[in-house]
Amino acid sequence: MNETAKTKFNNIKKITDEHLDKYIEIKYPQKIYEAMRYSLLAGGKRLRPVMAIETALLFGAKQEEILPCACAIEMLHCQSLIHDDLPCMDNDDFRRGKPSNHKVFGEAVATLAGDALLSYAPKIIIDKTPKSVKSDIILRVLNEFFIAAGVDGIISGQIVDIESEKKKISKETLEYLYEYKTAKLFKLAMRSGAIIAGVKEDILQKLTLFAEYFGYAFQIYDDILDVTSTIEQLGKTPGKDEKNEKSTYVSMFGLQEAKQQTLFLCNKAYDILKQEQIKSEILKGIVSDIIMGIDKCY
Amino acid sequence: MNETAKTKFNNIKKITDEHLDKYIEIKYPQKIYEAMRYSLLAGGKRLRPVMAIETALLFGAKQEEILPCACAIEMLHCQSLIHDDLPCMDNDDFRRGKPSNHKVFGEAVATLAGDALLSYAPKIIIDKTPKSVKSDIILRVLNEFFIAAGVDGIISGQIVDIESEKKKISKETLEYLYEYKTAKLFKLAMRSGAIIAGVKEDILQKLTLFAEYFGYAFQIYDDILDVTSTIEQLGKTPGKDEKNEKSTYVSMFGLQEAKQQTLFLCNKAYDILKQEQIKSEILKGIVSDIIMGIDKCY
Repeated sequence: MNETAKTKFNNIKKITDEHLDKYIEIKYPQKIYEAMRYSLLAGGKRLRPVMAIETALLFGAKQEEILPCACAIEMLHCQSLIHDDLPCMDNDDFRRGKPSNHKVFGEAVATLAGDALLSYAPKIIIDKTPKSVKSDIILRVLNEFFIAAGVDGIISGQIVDIESEKKKISKETLEYLYEYKTAKLFKLAMRSGAIIAGVKEDILQKLTLFAEYFGYAFQIYDDILDVTSTIEQLGKTPGKDEKNEKSTYVSMFGLQEAKQQTLFLCNKAYDILKQEQIKSEILKGIVSDIIMGIDKCY
Repeated sequence: MNETAKTKFNNIKKITDEHLDKYIEIKYPQKIYEAMRYSLLAGGKRLRPVMAIETALLFGAKQEEILPCACAIEMLHCQSLIHDDLPCMDNDDFRRGKPSNHKVFGEAVATLAGDALLSYAPKIIIDKTPKSVKSDIILRVLNEFFIAAGVDGIISGQIVDIESEKKKISKETLEYLYEYKTAKLFKLAMRSGAIIAGVKEDILQKLTLFAEYFGYAFQIYDDILDVTSTIEQLGKTPGKDEKNEKSTYVSMFGLQEAKQQTLFLCNKAYDILKQEQIKSEILKGIVSDIIMGIDKCY
C-alpha cells in the first residue's frame, strides 16, 4: 500500500493495540488474564479491526462507536488461533513468531484462554460501545459476531478442515473452507463497521461481497506463503499444509494458477470499490498488498 | 421435593428438553451438530433452565419470553462440562452415564463443540426471544450470560481449580471455587429470569443471594456424592476429587462438617423464600432435595 494508506492504517492499528491492552487488565486469577493478553498482544497485523474501523469511519460513524466491536473481532480471531494451534487440532508450536499459547501456559489454560476470549469479546461490545449506538444496533452487531464465531462461521470451517485432512476434496469443499475459515471474519469486520454506521442494505451487500473476494484472496495468498516462505518470514511454521496433508488451492491447482486466481479475486474486490465509489486508501491498500505480495512468491 | 413440585418441575423440564432439541437442527457439516446435540441431549437434570423459567414465571414473565434464555444457560453449562472433561483438564471419560464428548468425537471436535455452544447460546437468545422483550432487557441478559461464562464466572473458577490441584488451599480459595465454578451459573439462571420478568433491584439481590446459598450447598453436596457414590448412582466417575488431589469441603473439613454446612446453607436459602414470601414449590423443592439427599450419604 502507498505511504498515505500505510500511515492511516498504522494510526488505526495503534489505537486498536492501545485499546486491546486497556480492555484486558490483569486481576485475580492472574494466569487467565496473562494467557489472554499473551496471544492478544503478540503483535498481529490487526487487519480485521482496521477494516471494521475504516468501514465505520467511511460511512460516518465515530471511531469510539466502532472501537469496542473492532477489538472484539480481534479477540475472536485470537481465540480461533489459540484453539487451532492446540495439539488436538493443528498442533502448531509457533504463532506470530512466538511459542503458541499452549506451549507457554499448557493446554488446559490455553483452552480456557480461548473460551475466555469468546465471552470477553461480546462483553466488551456491550460494556464499551457508547450510548450513541442504539441497543437494536448493538444486538445486530452481536448477531453478526455469533454468526462468524459459531457453526455458521469459523467453527464449521475448522470442522470441515479437520475432516478434509488426508483426503481429496472437491473445489466446492475448498471454497466452503475459504468462506467459513477465513472470509466470514472479514465479512464480520466490514458488516459490523457498516451496521454501526447505519448504511443501507444494498451498500451492506456490496461491502460483504468485497470482504468475500478479499477473504478468498487472502486465504489463497496464505496458502501460497505456506509453500514459499521461511519460518522467519511467516512467524509460524511453514509447510504446515503439506505436512498435515491439507488440500489448498496451491496443492490442487498449482502455484501459478493460485497466483492468477488471487489476482482475479483482488481485481473483483477493486471493482466493488470503484463501482460504489468507495474512496478508501486503506481498503485499496490491503488489496494491493496481496497483489504485490504474490509477485514476490516463487 | 413433594409430588406437586415434582410434576411442575418435570413439566418445565420437558418443555426445556423439547426446545433444546428443536433449537439445534443438524445441517452440514453434520459432525459438529451431532457433537453438540450428543452432550446437550444426554439427559441432564435441567436444574438451571428450570430455575430460570420458574423465576421468570413467578414474577410475571411469559414462558416463551424466558425459554430461549433458559436453553442458552443449559448450553453454556454443557459447554463447560465438555471442556472440563477434556484430557488436558479433568480428563473424565464419563458424563451423565455416557462416554464423554471427546471419547465419542475426539478431542478436536469436542473442543469445537464446546466453542460452538458458547456462540450458539447467545445467538439463540437474540434470535428466539420474542419481540415483547425489549432490546435493552436482552442486552442485560446477555451481559449476565457473559459474566457467568467468562473470566468473571466459570472460567476463573476452572483456572483456580486447576491451580489448586495437589495443594493445600485456604477456606477463602475454596469459597472462591464454589462461587465461580458453581454458584455463578445458578445466579445467571435466577437473575435472567428475574430481569426478563422486570423485577426491582432489591428482589433481584435477594434472588441472587438465594442462588448463591443454593449454589454453595449444591457444590458441597456434589463433593459429598463424589466420596459416597458409585459410578451408577453418579453417572460420572466418582472419587475423582481424591484422585486429582483436589481440595473440597469434604477433604478439608470432613464428611460430617460438610453435611452440616450444607444444611446450614439450605436453611439460609429457605429463609430468603420465606422472608420475601416467594411461594414456589419448585425452588423449595430443589433445596429440600439436597437436604434429603445428604441424609442418605454415608
